[in-house]
Amino acid sequence: MSELRKDPITGRWVIISTELARRPSDFELDPVVLSPDPACPFCEGNEAQTPAEISSDRTTGAANQPGWQLRVIPNRFPVLRVEGTLDREGEGLFDKMNGIGAHEVIIETPRHEDTLATMGDAAVERVLRAFRDRVLDLKKDSRFRYVIIFKNHGRAAGAKLAHTCSQLIALPIVPREVREEVDGAKAHYQVKERCVFCDVLRQELTDRRRIVAENTDMVAMSPYAPRFPFETWIMPRRHRARFEDAEPHEFASLARMLGDLLRRMDRMLEHPPYNLLIHTAPVAEDAGAYYHWHVEVIPKLTRVAGFEWATGFYLNPTAPEEAAQVLRDARMSGS
Amino acid sequence: MSELRKDPITGRWVIISTELARRPSDFELDPVVLSPDPACPFCEGNEAQTPAEISSDRTTGAANQPGWQLRVIPNRFPVLRVEGTLDREGEGLFDKMNGIGAHEVIIETPRHEDTLATMGDAAVERVLRAFRDRVLDLKKDSRFRYVIIFKNHGRAAGAKLAHTCSQLIALPIVPREVREEVDGAKAHYQVKERCVFCDVLRQELTDRRRIVAENTDMVAMSPYAPRFPFETWIMPRRHRARFEDAEPHEFASLARMLGDLLRRMDRMLEHPPYNLLIHTAPVAEDAGAYYHWHVEVIPKLTRVAGFEWATGFYLNPTAPEEAAQVLRDARMSGS
Repeated sequence: MSELRKDPITGRWVIISTELARRPSDFELDPVVLSPDPACPFCEGNEAQTPAEISSDRTTGAANQPGWQLRVIPNRFPVLRVEGTLDREGEGLFDKMNGIGAHEVIIETPRHEDTLATMGDAAVERVLRAFRDRVLDLKKDSRFRYVIIFKNHGRAAGAKLAHTCSQLIALPIVPREVREEVDGAKAHYQVKERCVFCDVLRQELTDRRRIVAENTDMVAMSPYAPRFPFETWIMPRRHRARFEDAEPHEFASLARMLGDLLRRMDRMLEHPPYNLLIHTAPVAEDAGAYYHWHVEVIPKLTRVAGFEWATGFYLNPTAPEEAAQVLRDARMSGS
Repeated sequence: MSELRKDPITGRWVIISTELARRPSDFELDPVVLSPDPACPFCEGNEAQTPAEISSDRTTGAANQPGWQLRVIPNRFPVLRVEGTLDREGEGLFDKMNGIGAHEVIIETPRHEDTLATMGDAAVERVLRAFRDRVLDLKKDSRFRYVIIFKNHGRAAGAKLAHTCSQLIALPIVPREVREEVDGAKAHYQVKERCVFCDVLRQELTDRRRIVAENTDMVAMSPYAPRFPFETWIMPRRHRARFEDAEPHEFASLARMLGDLLRRMDRMLEHPPYNLLIHTAPVAEDAGAYYHWHVEVIPKLTRVAGFEWATGFYLNPTAPEEAAQVLRDARMSGS
């Protein structure tokens, strides 16, 4: 018998299919393989092939020269542009505005073969701090209502280049999924005067069946009603609305937990393509009491068919209890 | 400059990217090619390879024998099952129920090489009437709140078998995208006492830039804020909440319009994979005043990356005015 489960934050229902009951070996796995590419514009030495850097973390060298550990550059093909005004406009029934925003790329390492799973805790922490610094800088621009930070790892997850990088898009609106999560958390707070994420975390830590791993500040867990097989969330234990306001020790703990989780996935799911998203509160909203930042990692193991995005109704062939157990039992050296 | 556009029904914003400005020749097209397959379980003569039919439209022969034009069968791997009770249950913060529902397959033709674009108006009309009949039958079961009818055409759109077919899933809940559309239409009605779809249709028929084709009862158009390139809606001129309540002449007009639209897409987009969805009002809701049934056809031309489904924020590289013009200008013999 399949189960219909409701996400306690957004109210979204998913089908957890036990008829299909997919284990890792049942998926058509599509490992991400990184082969050297001398023409890669994101490799050290090829800085001239990218737009001029916005910032970099470097031990030596001038801007746009070798000697860096991490670079932030404007996207060469931005979906939104920084210059201009929003010019909100109606057209009969319709509403539009200019595509104002920022679209940046965070090149996470100078080395083509590195991934977040292999580059080491200090390098992952450097990436997280770069995310924070860019968000804090872009929040000064009053046109922006939200900054999305996401990573497409592997072609099947939407990556265009192989070299590991993340993207950032600053938007003049709050995206719909964020809106729903924030509104759901607010509704829970209005009734209970508690954060729904804190409530979920407390229940999951007692129940244990969906816990993947823990450290001082972070808990990795399969959510109760995941949309996708092996979807995993990393939740900070400490209630806080915004990723960019986390403490230094929390960034260090998140870096360790993220590397650990991605190595578990690499091992059990054969280096899967994946998407990573930072969920943080909207820029101009006072969500401090009820929103709780977190990170979502979603391996790309299934093809999303039309019916799923068109109905908003997801069919997940792997129960989260089983996914958590597979990832929990992945015995990792050094973790 | 890109544009941010808001869908007038759901309030969802999309980015229409003029930086990318993709025309048909700019996509990596992935034509759906149908090659004969003697082992196909959906071909005439292979009836024994499918579950026993629920219904069929046939000129000769007994059930589950050759002689049919269309068959409806239970899905061999159903995501939900008809037998059992919902057993709504809480688990601390969480809510679940048993996966009760129906999952059926409509085999649209006995011939492996046919598609909705090539099989002719009468055969397409037969398919639409089968959809209606199945919905009317399943609505008698009071456990069901919504019946989704959708088609995945081609592997890239999620089809597992090549033989043209549609699927139907009866659900004990109203899916989220339907909920949003219905609620958006209701909110418009509460303010204006008019159907928002009728308002959109009236404005589009005056404006003309997003109209693809028209006949007596139906209008094919690119929506103002489409999520996907070449996304096209077929709207009935006559206001009515439910597909299954349409008049016989409307089914005939829809069949002609659907065949015409799919032939235009086949011609201009090289036989693309696509998803088709019937949007109709939820079973038990009195949406007669404000909801307006319609059909959405979405060619699969781009890869949806993680950021898009995770944020609910879509980036569309083709303006709907351009898509409509391409499809409008496709000169079709016999249309």
